[in-house]
This record gives sequence, structure tokens and C-alpha cells, in this order.
Amino acid sequence: MNTDPALVARLPLDLPALDWVTDAARVARLSQDFAWFSPVLKRQLADKTAEIAVRPRTEAEVRAVVAACARDAIPITVRGSGTGNYGQAIPLHGGVILDMSGYNAFGWVRGGTGRAQAGIRLADFDRQSRPQGWELRWLPSTFRSATLGGLFGGGFGGAGSITYGPMAATGNVLGVRVMTVEPEPRVIELRAPDAMLLHHVYGTNGIVLELEVALAPALDWVESIATFSSFDAALEFASALGAAPGLVKKEVCFLGAPVPDHMAALAEYLPKGCHAVLIVMAESSQAGMEDMAAAAGGTISYRKTAAESGSRTLLEYTWNHTTLVAMKVDRGLTYLQTGFDPARHVAQAKALEKALAGEVMTHLEFLRTKDGAFNCSGLQLIRFTTEARLEEIMQVFRDHGVAINNPHVYILEDGKQGALNPAVVALKHRFDPQGLLNPGKMRSWTPAPTAADALEPRRDIAA
Amino acid sequence: MNTDPALVARLPLDLPALDWVTDAARVARLSQDFAWFSPVLKRQLADKTAEIAVRPRTEAEVRAVVAACARDAIPITVRGSGTGNYGQAIPLHGGVILDMSGYNAFGWVRGGTGRAQAGIRLADFDRQSRPQGWELRWLPSTFRSATLGGLFGGGFGGAGSITYGPMAATGNVLGVRVMTVEPEPRVIELRAPDAMLLHHVYGTNGIVLELEVALAPALDWVESIATFSSFDAALEFASALGAAPGLVKKEVCFLGAPVPDHMAALAEYLPKGCHAVLIVMAESSQAGMEDMAAAAGGTISYRKTAAESGSRTLLEYTWNHTTLVAMKVDRGLTYLQTGFDPARHVAQAKALEKALAGEVMTHLEFLRTKDGAFNCSGLQLIRFTTEARLEEIMQVFRDHGVAINNPHVYILEDGKQGALNPAVVALKHRFDPQGLLNPGKMRSWTPAPTAADALEPRRDIAA
Repeated sequence: MNTDPALVARLPLDLPALDWVTDAARVARLSQDFAWFSPVLKRQLADKTAEIAVRPRTEAEVRAVVAACARDAIPITVRGSGTGNYGQAIPLHGGVILDMSGYNAFGWVRGGTGRAQAGIRLADFDRQSRPQGWELRWLPSTFRSATLGGLFGGGFGGAGSITYGPMAATGNVLGVRVMTVEPEPRVIELRAPDAMLLHHVYGTNGIVLELEVALAPALDWVESIATFSSFDAALEFASALGAAPGLVKKEVCFLGAPVPDHMAALAEYLPKGCHAVLIVMAESSQAGMEDMAAAAGGTISYRKTAAESGSRTLLEYTWNHTTLVAMKVDRGLTYLQTGFDPARHVAQAKALEKALAGEVMTHLEFLRTKDGAFNCSGLQLIRFTTEARLEEIMQVFRDHGVAINNPHVYILEDGKQGALNPAVVALKHRFDPQGLLNPGKMRSWTPAPTAADALEPRRDIAA
Repeated sequence: MNTDPALVARLPLDLPALDWVTDAARVARLSQDFAWFSPVLKRQLADKTAEIAVRPRTEAEVRAVVAACARDAIPITVRGSGTGNYGQAIPLHGGVILDMSGYNAFGWVRGGTGRAQAGIRLADFDRQSRPQGWELRWLPSTFRSATLGGLFGGGFGGAGSITYGPMAATGNVLGVRVMTVEPEPRVIELRAPDAMLLHHVYGTNGIVLELEVALAPALDWVESIATFSSFDAALEFASALGAAPGLVKKEVCFLGAPVPDHMAALAEYLPKGCHAVLIVMAESSQAGMEDMAAAAGGTISYRKTAAESGSRTLLEYTWNHTTLVAMKVDRGLTYLQTGFDPARHVAQAKALEKALAGEVMTHLEFLRTKDGAFNCSGLQLIRFTTEARLEEIMQVFRDHGVAINNPHVYILEDGKQGALNPAVVALKHRFDPQGLLNPGKMRSWTPAPTAADALEPRRDIAA
């Protein structure tokens, strides 16, 4: 895909009222995300950049940019806050970065459902919905800066997925408002399940303008750390706690030694060499959790209500913040994403700890799968040596029956989902017939040889 | 155990301020529960009666009765509303019925926790807690009349157990206030997990005065019926719906044909011969449920918000109200209680439907087990012929790997729990040293040959 730089350069002249970013250093910064967690992606994507970025504030501004790009066949890469780890927001073929972070109005909350513009930060959403008694069901550890649209377009879930499963589970997302990429952009409201065809496809098949999501009752959460001297005891406790139906929880994160040793800011609560479980629990469930921890030989070293913890939250030591925090003290680390077998996840984690001790450090996030099975997902830390050895390590996981959701690839089909649902690709033909959205990320799409409409079954979408 | 009738007759004379029931017909009625669901228990327990009943209104009145009974070695059978099915509230050795239904003050709600006196009806609790944003986590189908203390003493859970598991799951019950049966009764606050030693032991090891329980956020629930022409499709839908983590639910009840044909009051929503799923779902989860039902070939024949349904609720067609409703139209029926294997509950239910069609009708309640595994529990309806055939049917279930929680027995150890936790028996020695509470229900307890205190390890209780 070749774009004429002169056409891109003309955009701010044609649309002077918009908030354009043309400074090369700023554009380069807006062209990157957290793909540098992976030494592989870092090598592959470090020099990729858009030619220009724009920050629309209204739907009319989004439409103006999109219409111009469709007219001139300029690639568009939609970006939230760039907190993804797979190069989702990194343009492979230049063009325009559509930075949605300024399109961020909170809509409404009613009947346990909420709606907002895609660029709203997750923390801002909660700040506005909690006084009405509701909060988001999932918070990735990047919640302060990550946007709702970004979570939908390139994320999974996070804290809260231990109760509500991933964002992809039926009932979590109720609808999206989408703009097509055409000279005359259309705006379409898609309800679930069709809305989910735009989930986790890196903004390749439509521009999500607004999201309507099911919410969770806003509870008073208590954050705790339980420490253990035994890996097995800590792991078994974390798993039993995560599954316990009478304990209402938002987060259970298991960190095998020496992961906790990397968390300097929490050092006073994490005895050197300990195994730790980071927990966010409803106030009324705290006593039950502490009973279980005591019975398992654990020590509660940290216990703070939201009011007591102020701006610090343990959530920023879980999920990929664990990776971030550890890489800050040891740049020789990278990580994996692994999916365990719900029927034997504890046994698998114990076996892998034995098989790879010293080279792989265990970090597990407990959750419910899309279908509701209780399981854990691994974000293991790896002492990186070579890409070949990284592949070998992944094979050891597979040999133990643990799936690899490879975070060292940037093409959709190479990641956790593998082959795409044909309806996802069909939607791209309808909503982005020229293939201008984040080109290069979806391998299954090829330009239609004739008018896209003629090929399109359309019955996959109710809109 | 022999009680001197003269001693019992003296009680109202000694304590004239109390609300005594002496009329033989009324005492006989207060001596019965729903054990008549079982033809076996009906035969065994029909003539059992106390000699007198009393309805205390204050802790002082409870204490006065208990002190007098302890002094004179008069049996005490604690009763809520008598909605149990196992003869829990039926006195085997006469004495006094301690009817707790007048000891029913609502205490408080704070931080997701609530407290009330044992005799409060579950519906009354919710009526007082819901305006504060909270409701009980579990409602048996008898919630209008059943008491909180009765649910704790002889119940399991009910609607809500699909999210919070049984009442026995860690974190559901936080504490109980207990009175001992001694000439000078003591009152002791037991916190969980010790509090759970008094759960589901039919009031044999202490008199529960107050309960403190964790609550659920009060949501706006919608009640629905989905009907199917295929048994397998309905069952698979019900199981997938019950497990779906993004759908917030209170009840998923599967009724295989011809169970729905017994529900005359719902006939307009239940096509003759259909299989039905009765569903209570959060408002924001309704659309996701309906998507799943449509995909499974189901038809939503009934959909009402709490406001629309008024005083009728589908909950009164689930759990053992299914049994009650069916027995009203066919007194030749009885039922079973069965526990499936979480790893293969759907396959087991299909196989049993084939093996016993015509004689056993499938009724399954979906729930989370105490440990959080997703499962179903059966309350199958049986066309009763003989006790011998009932035993054979139970064996067919066992042969399919399904456990029988026999509802045709009244002794604790013969029911679902089998051998009692020794700490339960130890507690009875401490709290009821003479064995006056509901005598004959706990086989493991035998009177201490010497002073009970001398035998007692006591370290099992933190109080």
C-alpha cells in the first residue's frame, strides 16, 4: 500500500479547524504502543510511523477526516491511549493516526448499563458512573490512561474478569456505534452479538465511536496482599479463593517468587523470596478471604480500603503492569501470555514452575473464561536470551497442554484467536471496502476484485 | 428419652407472660413440616407431635423457656416456619416447639452485610434491605414464609445459589448469636467459620438467635420463560446460560416435559409437552439471554419485570415449589434430590432422561457448588409406586455417577452430608450437654458419661 505523501500533507490544509499533529517526533510517539514489551515486536515495529495524527473532538470531525482519507486512499490507524502490547496502534503503512482520546464524553448510566464515547478513559468512566452506583466490569491495569474503545478494539478484560469473564463474554458489551470508511461515511448502531465482530480486531473493520456496556454494581473494595513461603500453598489458595462463590472479588493475582522481589514500591509488604497473592475483594468478603488465607498458611501483609490506599492501587501491580514494573528493574525480561486448562490449571502451573524455574517466573491471573469456566491465564516473566529460546520455552508450555497466546506477533491471525470468524472479514468488506483501516494487521482480508457490495452476503449483520 | 408430661404442663404456669400454644390440634400443626413430600417420611413422622409450643418475642423469653426446659430435661425443637422437607422441625420425643417466627426483628445493613433475628421471614428481610440497596443472596422458593434461621438450620440456598453458591460457601454467613441449653443459658457470638458448625444440623447443637450474612446488591430482576421442543437443546441452553459469566442471574431452572404440564397457572406460557427454562436475570443481561435462547431454538413465552409481575414470581415454580405445584395436581408423585458431577452434568442428565423416562421427570436447578464449580442439582419428580422401587431408582442415579441427597430420611447422618464433622458433635456437647435439642436427629451424639466439660476439647471454637 503506497500513500502519496502530498495527499497526507494536504489534509490539515483541507480541514484546518481540526486538531492536527504534524511534528515528526510527536507523530512518531503517537505511532507507538507498548509493543516494546516484546523484543521481537520491538525489532519489527520500532521504526513504523504515521505521517500525521489528528485528534477529533466531535463525530463531525471524525467524519471529515474519514471522508478525506477514503477519498484519497490514505490509511487510518485508530488509537486510544496506545496501551496495547501487540502493536495494535502502530501503523505499518503510514497515513493518519486517528487519536480518539479527545472523543471522550460520558453518556449515561441506566438499569445497569452505561454508554460513552470511545475515547473515554476507563478511570474517567468509573469516576462518573460510581456516584450513580455502577462501575465498569473490567479494568485492565492501564485503566488510568486506557480508553474504553481501546479496550474493546485491542484488549481482553482485566480486573473484574474473575467475575464477569472477558469483555467478549455474552452480555458484557451491548452495542457499538460504528462509522464506515467511505467517501460518504455511514454511521451504524450494531447491537450484540453483531457488535462483537469489531472486538479485538485492532480497529481493522470499522471505527467504533461509542460503546454501550453492561456495568457492575459499584462496591467498596478492599485491597490485600497475602504472602506465603510455599509456592504450592500460595497457588492453591489463590485458585480456591478465585473460585469461591460466596466471596465477591475483582482481582486475584498470583506472583511466584521471585516476581514480588521486583516490586520495589511494595517491598515493605513483600518479604524477600516470598510468593504473593494480590487481592481486591468486596468489603463483606474480606473476613472470609482472611480465614482462607490463614488456613492456607498465608500472612496478610497489606490491607487497605479504597479510601486508605488513596491514589495507589494494587491493580497497578497486576496483569501487564506486573510485566511493566518488573521490566523497569530488569530490562532483560520479557513475557508470555498463556491459557491454561480449566480442569487442571493448578497442576499445570506447578509442573511448569518445576520445568522452567530460573528462566520463567510464574505470574497467573485468575478469571472466568468466555463460557464461565474458572481458570487462570499466565503472564509469565521470561529472562530473555534469544528468539529461538523464546520459541523453545513456548513449546514447553504447549507440551504441558497450556496454550500460547503469543504476544510477540502483530498480525491478528497469528495471535490468540487464530483463524478469524468469516463474519469479521465480511464486515471489513462492508465497512472498510478499500482496506484503509490499520492495513497489514488482518491477513484474511484481501481487496475485493470487483465492487465489494456485489460479494457481500450482508445477512451476518442485523443493522 | 422420656419426658414427664406434668413438667411440660407446668411450663405455661411458671411462665405465664409467654405466648404458649396448648391446643392439641394447633400444637400438632406446629409439629409438622413439609416432610409429607416424601411418602416414606409421611409414614414415619405423621403422628409425631410436641406437647406444647411457645412463641417467644424477646431474647429474655427465649432464655426463660430454655432455662426451664434445661432444668426439667424437656426436649426443645426449634422451628422457623416449618417449610423444611426432611422432618427437621418435627419433634420425635415430644416436649416443646420453640417457634421462632415471632422473634423477627430486622437489625441493620451496612457495607454489604446484614443482620437480623432468626425468625425474620426472608421476604421481610428483603423488603427492609432492598431500599438500602441490598438483598439476600439466596431465596428458597418458600421465601414468603421461610425464616432466615430456618434456612440456616435446615436449608441449602435456592435462587441466587447460581451466583453465590450454597449458604454454606465461605463468605455467605459471617456470624451467629447462639444460646446454649443449660439451666443458666449462655449467649455466644460465633463468627465464621465456627458459625457454620450450626448450619444445616436441624437446630441440634445450639439455638440460633441472630444471623449476620453477606448480602447481594439489589438489582432490577426480570423473569422469563424460554420454551423448547427439544429436551437436549433446552438443557444445553440452560447450562450454558447458567455458566455465562457476563450474564448476571438469580435463577435458572430446567423443567423437562411433562413437568411444565403440571403448572396450570402458567399454562398460557407453556405449550403442552414443552421443555421449559425458568429464568430470573438482571435487567442489563436480558438481551444477552434472549440472544442465547434464540440461537438455541427457544421461544421466550414470558417476560416480566418485578413491577409487571406484581405478587406473582416464577421463583414460586422453582426448587421445591416445582414439587409442591406438581403434587397439587398429582398426589401420586414424590421427588428426589440429586447431585451431579460438574464435569459432565449435561451428559448425565441426558442419559438419565433416557434411562428413566415415564417414571422420572427431569427438574434441574443450576448452581455453583460450595467450591464454585458450575453444576446442577436435581429435584426430579417421581411417579411413586413402592419404597423398594424408589430405592431402585436411586440406584440408577448412583450408577450414572449422580449422588443421591436422600430426602426420604430424617436423621442428619443419613442425608446428604453423611458422617458429621466431629466439631459439630463437639459443639453439641458444649451447647446442649443434656441432648435436649431436637433429640433423635443426630445419631453421632451420645450423652457424655461424665460432665461434658471434662470431655470437651473446646479449642474448635474461638468464642
